[in-house]
Amino acid sequence: MQYPEPIAKLIDSYTKLPGIGPKTATRLAFYTLGMNEEDVQDFSKALISAKTDLTFCSICGNITATDTDPCVICRDQSRDQSTVFVVENSRDVMAMENTRDYHGLYHVLNGVISPSAGTGPEDINLPSLIRRLSEHEEIKEVIVGTNANAEGEATAMYLARLLKPAGIAVTRLAHGLAVGSDIDYADELTLIKAVQGRTKL
Amino acid sequence: MQYPEPIAKLIDSYTKLPGIGPKTATRLAFYTLGMNEEDVQDFSKALISAKTDLTFCSICGNITATDTDPCVICRDQSRDQSTVFVVENSRDVMAMENTRDYHGLYHVLNGVISPSAGTGPEDINLPSLIRRLSEHEEIKEVIVGTNANAEGEATAMYLARLLKPAGIAVTRLAHGLAVGSDIDYADELTLIKAVQGRTKL
Repeated sequence: MQYPEPIAKLIDSYTKLPGIGPKTATRLAFYTLGMNEEDVQDFSKALISAKTDLTFCSICGNITATDTDPCVICRDQSRDQSTVFVVENSRDVMAMENTRDYHGLYHVLNGVISPSAGTGPEDINLPSLIRRLSEHEEIKEVIVGTNANAEGEATAMYLARLLKPAGIAVTRLAHGLAVGSDIDYADELTLIKAVQGRTKL
Repeated sequence: MQYPEPIAKLIDSYTKLPGIGPKTATRLAFYTLGMNEEDVQDFSKALISAKTDLTFCSICGNITATDTDPCVICRDQSRDQSTVFVVENSRDVMAMENTRDYHGLYHVLNGVISPSAGTGPEDINLPSLIRRLSEHEEIKEVIVGTNANAEGEATAMYLARLLKPAGIAVTRLAHGLAVGSDIDYADELTLIKAVQGRTKL
C-alpha cells in the first residue's frame, strides 16, 4: 500500500536530504502536516529563496545574498586587507567570525583538493585566489584553514608550494589539544602534533 | 555574524522540525543550496501540497487525498466489513497494510488517551468510532492496536469497557517476544507477558 500522493511526495523530498532515511522522512512528513500553515508557507518559500536569492561572492567565494555581491566582508574596508584566511566552505567563515578574533579577509574554496574524488585545483574556487593575490599586492599572508584531514592537508601543501615562491607568507592553523580536553582521550596523531608544535612558556 | 537572510530563514525552518538542531539545520540548508533546481522546486511544492491536498477520511480518520474522501480502504467493499482495527495514527495503518495479512477496516484515533497530557476520549477521533459502531451493526470485532505503552493501554482499557456491553468483541494485539529476538535480551515485562500469553503447541 502507498501513502496518498501528496504525503508520499513530501516523504520522497525529505528522503533526499543527507542522513534522513525513509523512517525519519515519514516522521517529518507527518509532523509537517501538523505544523501551522504559516510555518509551512515560510519553509516552502525559504527553499526557493535559498536557491534563487543566494550567490557566491565574486571576490572571495563566500555565500552572499544576490543583491550583496561582493559580500559584506569583502566590502568592509575597516578589515585588515593584508591577510586572507582560506577555508573550505561558508560554515567555516561563520565559525571563524564567531570567535570575533580575526579581522582579515577570507577566501572560500567551496571544496577541497581530493585526488581520490578526482577534484583538482581547477575544480574548486582556487584559480580566483591566485588571481586575487596577483592583483592585490597588499596581501602579505595567507592562513590556510582547511580541515585537519588528508584532503585538507593536501590542499594546504598545494597552496604553500604555489604561493611561497611569490613571496607570500603561507601559514597553517595549529594542530594540538582542544582547549578543555583530556590528554588521555586525545588520539595519537593529535598528541604527536601537539608535542611538535609545543610553545615556550 | 549572521548568515545572509535567505539561508538564515531556511536554517530557521529546518530547525522547527523535530530532532533537528541548529547544527544539523545548517548542514541541511547548505546541502539544499547544492541540490538541483527541480528537486528543490518539488520539495517546496510538496510542503504546500501536503498541507492543502490532504485531509482525514470522514469515516475512519485515516489520512487521505482531499479528492478521495472516504479513503480507499473505506471505499473497498471487498474488505471484511465486520472487523475494525483501531490504531493511533496513519503510519500504523501503513505498517499493518504492509503485512498484507489483514483485510478488514481501520479506525485511526489520531492520538491516544493520555491523562498526563490532558487528552481525553473527546479530544481524539473516538466519538466517531462509537457513532460508526452504532450505525454499522455488521461490525462484530474491534481489534485495539494502540501502542504497548501506558497511554496505549489506557486507551485499550477505555475502549474495552465502553464496547463490551454493546456486544462487540474487543481484542488486543498480543504482547510477547518479537520474532527472531533472543530471550536474554527481552525486557522483564515483555517476558512476563509472553509467558502469560503462551500458546499450546
